[in-house]
This record gives sequence, C-alpha cells and structure tokens, in this order.
Amino acid sequence: MPRATLITNIGELVTNDEQPGREGGPLGIVRDAAVLVEHGEVTWVGAAADASAHTPESGVELVDAGGRAVIPGFVDSHTHLVFGGDRAEEFAARMAGRRYEAGGIRSTVAATRAATDDELRARLTGFVAELHAQGTTTFEVKSGYGLSVADEERLVRLAREVTSEVTFLGAHVVPFEFREDPRFDGDPVAAGDAYVDVVIGEMLDACAPHSRWIDAFCERGAFSPEQSRRVLEAGRDAGLGIRVHGNQLGEGGGVRLAVELGAASVDHCTFLSDEDVAALASSDTVATLLPGVEFSTRQPYPDARRLIEAGVTVALASDCNPGSCFTSSMPFCIAVAVRDMNMTPAEALWASTAAGAKALRRSDVGALRPGMRADLVELDAPSYLHLAYRPGVPIVRRVWAAGAPMA
Amino acid sequence: MPRATLITNIGELVTNDEQPGREGGPLGIVRDAAVLVEHGEVTWVGAAADASAHTPESGVELVDAGGRAVIPGFVDSHTHLVFGGDRAEEFAARMAGRRYEAGGIRSTVAATRAATDDELRARLTGFVAELHAQGTTTFEVKSGYGLSVADEERLVRLAREVTSEVTFLGAHVVPFEFREDPRFDGDPVAAGDAYVDVVIGEMLDACAPHSRWIDAFCERGAFSPEQSRRVLEAGRDAGLGIRVHGNQLGEGGGVRLAVELGAASVDHCTFLSDEDVAALASSDTVATLLPGVEFSTRQPYPDARRLIEAGVTVALASDCNPGSCFTSSMPFCIAVAVRDMNMTPAEALWASTAAGAKALRRSDVGALRPGMRADLVELDAPSYLHLAYRPGVPIVRRVWAAGAPMA
Repeated sequence: MPRATLITNIGELVTNDEQPGREGGPLGIVRDAAVLVEHGEVTWVGAAADASAHTPESGVELVDAGGRAVIPGFVDSHTHLVFGGDRAEEFAARMAGRRYEAGGIRSTVAATRAATDDELRARLTGFVAELHAQGTTTFEVKSGYGLSVADEERLVRLAREVTSEVTFLGAHVVPFEFREDPRFDGDPVAAGDAYVDVVIGEMLDACAPHSRWIDAFCERGAFSPEQSRRVLEAGRDAGLGIRVHGNQLGEGGGVRLAVELGAASVDHCTFLSDEDVAALASSDTVATLLPGVEFSTRQPYPDARRLIEAGVTVALASDCNPGSCFTSSMPFCIAVAVRDMNMTPAEALWASTAAGAKALRRSDVGALRPGMRADLVELDAPSYLHLAYRPGVPIVRRVWAAGAPMA
Repeated sequence: MPRATLITNIGELVTNDEQPGREGGPLGIVRDAAVLVEHGEVTWVGAAADASAHTPESGVELVDAGGRAVIPGFVDSHTHLVFGGDRAEEFAARMAGRRYEAGGIRSTVAATRAATDDELRARLTGFVAELHAQGTTTFEVKSGYGLSVADEERLVRLAREVTSEVTFLGAHVVPFEFREDPRFDGDPVAAGDAYVDVVIGEMLDACAPHSRWIDAFCERGAFSPEQSRRVLEAGRDAGLGIRVHGNQLGEGGGVRLAVELGAASVDHCTFLSDEDVAALASSDTVATLLPGVEFSTRQPYPDARRLIEAGVTVALASDCNPGSCFTSSMPFCIAVAVRDMNMTPAEALWASTAAGAKALRRSDVGALRPGMRADLVELDAPSYLHLAYRPGVPIVRRVWAAGAPMA
C-alpha cells in the first residue's frame, strides 16, 4: 500500500463539512477538488490546484476521478443481514394481494436456526460485498432471527466478524415456542413477558459481549412499550447503546420511549403524532426512515419534510431484510426518499451519510475532513444529484473504505 | 470463440416459451436447466441432466450458473440516448417544487446541437455499456433533440451505429425557431404545421435511410392528432414502422391514432379512457408503459392491471432521457411496475422481454428457444422474483448478447 493516496480531479466533492466559501450548505461542496488519504484517514481536503503543497513528495498514489463526483461512503444504520432462507414467494404473494401462509418472520427464524455458521457466514459475506459495491462503507447488523439464547449469540457473534456496529435484537418478535406454550393459555402479554425475562437474562448475558447496541421492536403484535422498556433498560445497564424500532405500523409508544431513554435512533417513524414529532425535535434521537420498507410493503410513506421542518435529525437506512424490504441499496433509498418522502436530493444524501453516522453515534465517518476515516465513493456522474436523478442505475464507480479500494 | 457454449446448472430458467410441463405460464420456467448456444443462437433448452445428449462432443465451453436464475435479455423499446448536456439541476428543482427556467427539452436541443459527433458518440457508447451491464441486450434509440434536418440526420446516423432499432422522432416538439418565428404571429398551430412540413419533407428524406421507425409526440403542447397523423403516414409511406408517444399528460387522440394506423406500440398510456383501452384490446398495438417517467415526475402511475385484464399486450420500457426520466434500468422499471402499477413480478418480467420484442415487432429476441438470438442474463439470485424483491440492487451478474459475453 502506498504511503499516501491523492484522489484528484474531483468535479464535485461532497464533504459534509460546511465552511465559508463552500456550496450546498451542510454538504460543504468543493468543486475541482482533491482529497489526500494517509494511513486510512483523510488528511487534507481542498482545491485540486492546491494539492501539491499538501502532498508528500514521494510514495503518493495518484487517483484521477476524471471530473466525476465523490461523496462520503454511505452509513447504513439499520440492516438485518444474518439470516437463512428466502421469502421471494411471500413477496410476490403480497404484491398480488394474496395471503401466504408459509411466510413471516417465523419462516426466517426456522431457516436461520437450521443454517450452519458457515452457511450464515457465506451469505453475510456476500451481502457485505454487495454493500461495498453500492457505496456503503459503514453498516449496522442486527440479530433477531435466532430468538433463542444459542441462536441469538450465534448471530451477534457472526455479525461481529464483519462490523463493529452489532445490535442485539432478541426482542424482534415473541418466538412461537412462547406464543404457543400452553403455560400462557394463548395470552400474548404473558407469553411476551416470559420471553422478555429470557431476553434480559441469559440471552443478554450471551449477546452483550459481541454487541454495541440493544434494540426492541416496540409495536402492536411485537413488544409493548412496557416490555420494550424492560429490554432497553437492561441493555443499557449492560453497557449497550439504545436503538428502537417504533411507529412502523401505527402510532404507538415507540418514539416517545426512545426519546425518553435517550436512544441514538428510533427507526421507521412511519406513523407519527404531533407529540411524537415534538418529542423528537427536542431530543438528540435521530429519526431513521426506511423508504425501502414502504416501497416493498405498499405502506404509506412517512413525510420527511414534516420532521426536517420541525428540526428533527432525519437519517435514511436500508432495513435490508428478507421480509419487509430486501434492498441493500442506499442510492435506491435516496431516490425513493426524494420521490415519495419530500426530501431534496441534498437532504437525502446527508441523511444517508452524516445523519447515518449520528444515528450510530459515530464521529469518525459520514464526512470527509481531516481526521475522518477515508471512506469515499466515486460516482459515475458529475454530481451527487444523479443518485436521485438516475434511479436504479448502478452509478457507484469506485469505493474506498479506510483508504483501501473496495469496489 | 468456442464452437458452442453450454450454460448449465441454471436453478431457474425463464424461457418465455410456454410448454406443457413448464411452470409459470407464459414465462415457461424450467428448473435445473441448461441452454446450448451455437453461432450466437439458442440451439437447445432443457433439463441440465439431459444436456449431454444434445451437446457437441468437443469445442464446448461450459458455463456454470451455480444454481442461479437465467432470464432472456431485456428488450428496452423506448429510449432517447443521443443527446448532449445534463439536466440534474432541473430535476432537483422539480422535486423541490421550484420552477427552473433554464431547463426543458429546449436546453437539451441546444446542448445536442452544440456537441460534436464524437462527443455524442462517446456519451452514447457509455449508455450502451450501461444498458448491457444491466441486462438490456436489445434497445431502441430515438432522435428528437436535433429538430433540424442536419441535426436529426446526425442523431439517427449515430444511433444506427449502436442499434438497428432507430426511431426518427423529428416530431418530438416544435423547435423554438418555429415557435418564435414572427411569420406565425404566436400561433402554435401554424408554427407546428410549418415544422411538420419540414419533418415530412427534407428531414424525413435525410433520416429514413438510417431509421426503422417513425414516431410522433401526440400531446397537447407538442403535436395535435392531425399533425401527428401527417408525420406518421409520411413515415409509413417512406417504409418506416409506426410508434407513437401518446396519452402521457392527459387523455387525447394519441392512443386511438396509433391503433388506427396499426402502430407497433403506443408509449406512455398514462391517461386512458375506456374507449382507449377497448381500442388497444382489439388491436395488435402494444401499450408500452414507462414507470420511470411517473417515478421521476411524480405523475400518477398508469394501472397496468386494467390493461392486462382488458387483454391488451403491455410492455415496459425505460424511456431513458435527460428530462423526464433518466433511468436506464429495466430491473428498476420492473420493481416500480410491481409496486405502483399492479403488475405481478411475472407480468413485469414478461413485459420487459417478450412484450418489448413485440413492441419492436421482433421475433428473434425476447425468449429463449431454439432459433432465437442467444441473449441471456444471469442473475445473482435464485429467482427472477428478486428483480422486484430486491429493488435498486444490481443483481445482474453476467450478460450474453448473441452468445457473446457482455458484462
């Protein structure tokens, strides 16, 4: 590896580092720019014409961006990438308005439990390559398809092999062993309470060492606000940061619980009351919207404009999972957010990079300024606008993660 | 090049050749399949286990599809890929609900006229590579950004370098030289009539030798049904096949004119009366829907279901152009058609392959059976369903056009 890499002849560089003289507000755009990378970090950003004064005299690899746009690597703060099985038939049935009895999370849990470590690892490694090829250089991975102590431990352990952003989501759904246990006589609350006892006990003990985050699916049909609170507080007491799945299927207590507990992010936010929006606006909790979910389930889209105008920090993430949304493409999420969630292309890009980093409480990624990790994406386009202007077209040309070429 | 190529270990082969014993109706799906390719054509299709009996004893290249899905190459029957300039800023303004005075087709016409042949050719060649990488192996290209005899001739001539499916669209809009000519005293009909005189005279003479098709944009603000009829009939008399842009911005005479003239396809079909649907159903004219246009302009989507249930042949195409829709991705069009136009994934795939071939009156592409051109796409997925199930993800893995590897 060379001592330094100078990426130059960048037609449009998005830094996410707003400064006087730069364009695009928060995007901090520099035209005809260059970026110097040393030891995996950005050490200088500026006009290409000024680069030579800042560049070592030898050992420098020159990369010519040919006038194209360069942006920070995407930060995808919400994925579920450790799983077995396939639910394409269930997707097709849903799109045709048909019932599909063999589907649901339950089918993924069964396939995940049946898969070997090597099978899950091979699948996960494939997804990581797919993320890199699409410009995602930081990503979170959740457990949640094991739902037993041994399987959840397995999932967070495997996830930890590919990312430091591992989330323990034992509280994804109440597993069928509990829901169908005659002890609870069909009472879902009692079954959920008993499962939560396991989640915050032996399961948390097994998973916390591999995890950075605790998460709970606070939604009717999954976990109540009270159950979610028990999970999240236990995770916090075990040293984990808090994230919440909330308000996906209807208004509920998820967003307000997340804000009360100081969660880094509350994800989905599809159905929000004015009180939810006000609570988010007065907090440090990021609202992470997942456009692929509404796209793939034909749910109504959340209105990002409403949140942005209230002062809420809005992030975008893929939620890549086999059930409700199997996209891993942040450019696709940007295109849909612009089309259907009333974001500008600039807001959507910032939400997919800088705000994704905030949602993961990361200060080393999501922007290109000296000291940040050198995660860069060169687009086959003159401007980041093409991420929304050219939906579905794979315009990610080259990717560097911590200065190393990825794709 | 080997004498023959056997693509084998195909988990799911979509042939578009319905036969007893195959799955998926019109898709004619074969599981655990193989395809034999010789001299650029498909010469045998069947179960992989039966391949050896049909394969030459020597000179055969073996390709292992690893259990993945293989489909016919996409047929994109509607693009506008010869142009200069960029309208990303106009797109961003439209998405933000702002007016953008410097945009419109007029800006593309100015940039196209100002570009050299080599500049236009380089751009076009880049788009062709982009199409191939996304699995499109047959594509139409329209003129329409020249709008002068010399420039339209240039565009069809350049298009002819990359495809046999060239459409002369001199009747795209009335150029500003005519609209602003004091001779017409601001009368748009008179200006349009005078421009049509040129289109069907000197311009047609110059363009017909390079073209297979004539097209007209029959829409309020472009050309009336009467003007469109003059253009289309003149093109027909010069030996060109007929295609029509119709009913994009409102109900109008485009669809019925297309049917009356026996057009191969009428494209857009966003706003249709019951009479329009009935006319299409009783004709051989394909209704080509362009989901990327509605996506990128926030127009309402046409209801493909209504057309399919009436018995109309529905095709999907990209309409890739710098103004209303800059996607070149047929997988993206499929995903949007499934989400927002009420097509099943099977219908959307058929519409992007077999029906695209019908829209171009081609009998050598759009299906995989002996005698057809060997245009194949291997997906990085076990099923074609993933085209809609994984929106935005570049799952096209390998592409062959007439048996030659493309991507």
